[in-house]
Amino acid sequence: MSAVLPTRTPAEALEALRTTPPLTQCITNAVVTNFTANVLLALGAAPAMCDIVGEAGLFAGIADGVLINLGTPTPEQQGAAREAATATSRWVLDPVAIGALPVRTALAHELVEHRPAIVRANPSEIMALAGAGTGGRGVDATDDAESALPAAQSLAARFGCVVATSGPIDVITNGEHTVRVAGGSALLTRVTGGGCSLGATMAAFLGVTDAFSAAVAASVVHARASERAAASATGPGSFAVGFIDALAALQPADLDGWEARA
Amino acid sequence: MSAVLPTRTPAEALEALRTTPPLTQCITNAVVTNFTANVLLALGAAPAMCDIVGEAGLFAGIADGVLINLGTPTPEQQGAAREAATATSRWVLDPVAIGALPVRTALAHELVEHRPAIVRANPSEIMALAGAGTGGRGVDATDDAESALPAAQSLAARFGCVVATSGPIDVITNGEHTVRVAGGSALLTRVTGGGCSLGATMAAFLGVTDAFSAAVAASVVHARASERAAASATGPGSFAVGFIDALAALQPADLDGWEARA
Amino acid sequence: MSAVLPTRTPAEALEALRTTPPLTQCITNAVVTNFTANVLLALGAAPAMCDIVGEAGLFAGIADGVLINLGTPTPEQQGAAREAATATSRWVLDPVAIGALPVRTALAHELVEHRPAIVRANPSEIMALAGAGTGGRGVDATDDAESALPAAQSLAARFGCVVATSGPIDVITNGEHTVRVAGGSALLTRVTGGGCSLGATMAAFLGVTDAFSAAVAASVVHARASERAAASATGPGSFAVGFIDALAALQPADLDGWEARA
Repeated sequence: MSAVLPTRTPAEALEALRTTPPLTQCITNAVVTNFTANVLLALGAAPAMCDIVGEAGLFAGIADGVLINLGTPTPEQQGAAREAATATSRWVLDPVAIGALPVRTALAHELVEHRPAIVRANPSEIMALAGAGTGGRGVDATDDAESALPAAQSLAARFGCVVATSGPIDVITNGEHTVRVAGGSALLTRVTGGGCSLGATMAAFLGVTDAFSAAVAASVVHARASERAAASATGPGSFAVGFIDALAALQPADLDGWEARA
Repeated sequence: MSAVLPTRTPAEALEALRTTPPLTQCITNAVVTNFTANVLLALGAAPAMCDIVGEAGLFAGIADGVLINLGTPTPEQQGAAREAATATSRWVLDPVAIGALPVRTALAHELVEHRPAIVRANPSEIMALAGAGTGGRGVDATDDAESALPAAQSLAARFGCVVATSGPIDVITNGEHTVRVAGGSALLTRVTGGGCSLGATMAAFLGVTDAFSAAVAASVVHARASERAAASATGPGSFAVGFIDALAALQPADLDGWEARA
Repeated sequence: MSAVLPTRTPAEALEALRTTPPLTQCITNAVVTNFTANVLLALGAAPAMCDIVGEAGLFAGIADGVLINLGTPTPEQQGAAREAATATSRWVLDPVAIGALPVRTALAHELVEHRPAIVRANPSEIMALAGAGTGGRGVDATDDAESALPAAQSLAARFGCVVATSGPIDVITNGEHTVRVAGGSALLTRVTGGGCSLGATMAAFLGVTDAFSAAVAASVVHARASERAAASATGPGSFAVGFIDALAALQPADLDGWEARA
């Protein structure tokens, strides 16, 4: 189903997002919810962190894109995630820290059966979701994205989704075609929510383009914005502030020279 | 009950707040709790985010002002909100995103019967609470504040409260008298919690003055601080940081020239 | 059990932490979870905010240090705290705002029986935990740290732990020996999570050294970083950003001149 190349360039996707701000629902972990909402607002999307039982499914039906991130899966969020995953096909699954932790691991395996448009994760999480590894110790990647490509391709083929594996070079595949996004700044790994907000940005782009284009556009946008923020940062605190500023300032033309390696 | 003009100017209210920091309890959504606490600390109030069942009501009894914001109304927060709304009369209701979402809409209609001192919301939410509209898609205003004035006046008269409708020009009414606060910066709408923290600031001012004065003072304070922050910001990230700095630096004399149109 | 002097200087402890980043689990309140994670990342630790029932205890078994902070003790967090406190001995208890509030007060008294390595709190909370006071109104200290020393010594002797009482001068005791850490900036009290993140930093240092050394090292690190941040801040907003930057920039040699008074 996703076995096509991206239909829109990152520049075209950003242009579309700015023209028609997508209503982007986030069911995400308590640590990053503020940063994620600010990332989406800066990008130009309309965030809504609607994550309670009895509302999450209804809202997913009207949202343009939905993120389900399993970082702090309380029983309430588990219920909300189940509602949302069955109410829309335009959703991103971020299976944070699955592998050793039983609640989120079982939930991720259950949710993925509802066929997310995109799975975004670190290599160890992709391998755990594909049954090819035991997961990491938390949100840190313990494998590089390239090494998880076979697992990512297997997931993509099995669930008809795009799989975006994050690392110094992001590796994005639909099972048949694979795109790599280089660049970015290591400082983004020193700010909590760097990866989690990338999943939210993918959900926003799902409101304006296909899943493959959305995943690539989000990776390119985060890479460019983090490079610009890093240029004037004096540490991870000022970097996080500058990253939000850079996202807001980013123009479609700034994405023309993005470096992708297929 | 509120059919009087404000008894204190914003400058006088800020002076009083700085002299006797009000203990300000917030039962608010997970997205903005950090930003809200930092806004209150910068302002000079003493925030306490006490929002669990079995404690929220007790705490409301000793707090100088209370905010109940329905942005992420988990069952636990619903219970805490019910406790607090019945334990004090010095509270602000912020019915975030009511209208289409059933849990928070029912809760808002239930809570308002306990007569908040102030209702603060966007136009679509005011109209939904008054039964005059269907609500918005989230936290964004879809109507201007002036158009919601009849609904606001109706709410104010029915529940004996002050109604503060946010927009480019804030419209604050007690049903008989209406005050408008112009100014501010559109950048505040690009930071999550801009509106939610305004409700918290109103709750803080409830600890030192009457409801009408509190709502007007809070609007003027946020408008002035956001103008100052916008003057040196390079985007929404640096604006949010500067807004906190500006709140802390704000002096009563800075509020003398506020522009209100009655 | 803790009746020894610190075995490592703050400089040595920071060196060890940077060499082997400790996996630091935080079960903490919703207000400060983002700031706390960013403090730990800037410091060089690996934070994981794993706080749900069914995972918290398992995770505590593999974490190098654990923080249990009672700021917003929902039923879910209460269960997670119980799991973690019984799964590890390398944990810090932060009994936020105990005294008048019944849920957290009962929980703190229950948890302390499981013998935390460190108790970190404000003077009023230390006195409430020791049964020597009625607690404060919230997170603010209402007594100075020195006046709580008898209560702190009593707690330390009874539970075999180190007790760190925060104030303009931090007072850290194992019941027999007491170390005082001066310095820091009052601006840290204007940022929500200043004290809560100090408890998290202590938990991180528990992964690389003994409890007494960990508590002292964390206090010295926060004091130095806050002094540096204050030097260039224009208010509490820019101070919080600068504090994160300063933590990341801090080198072991920067801690050589720390002022301790035994």
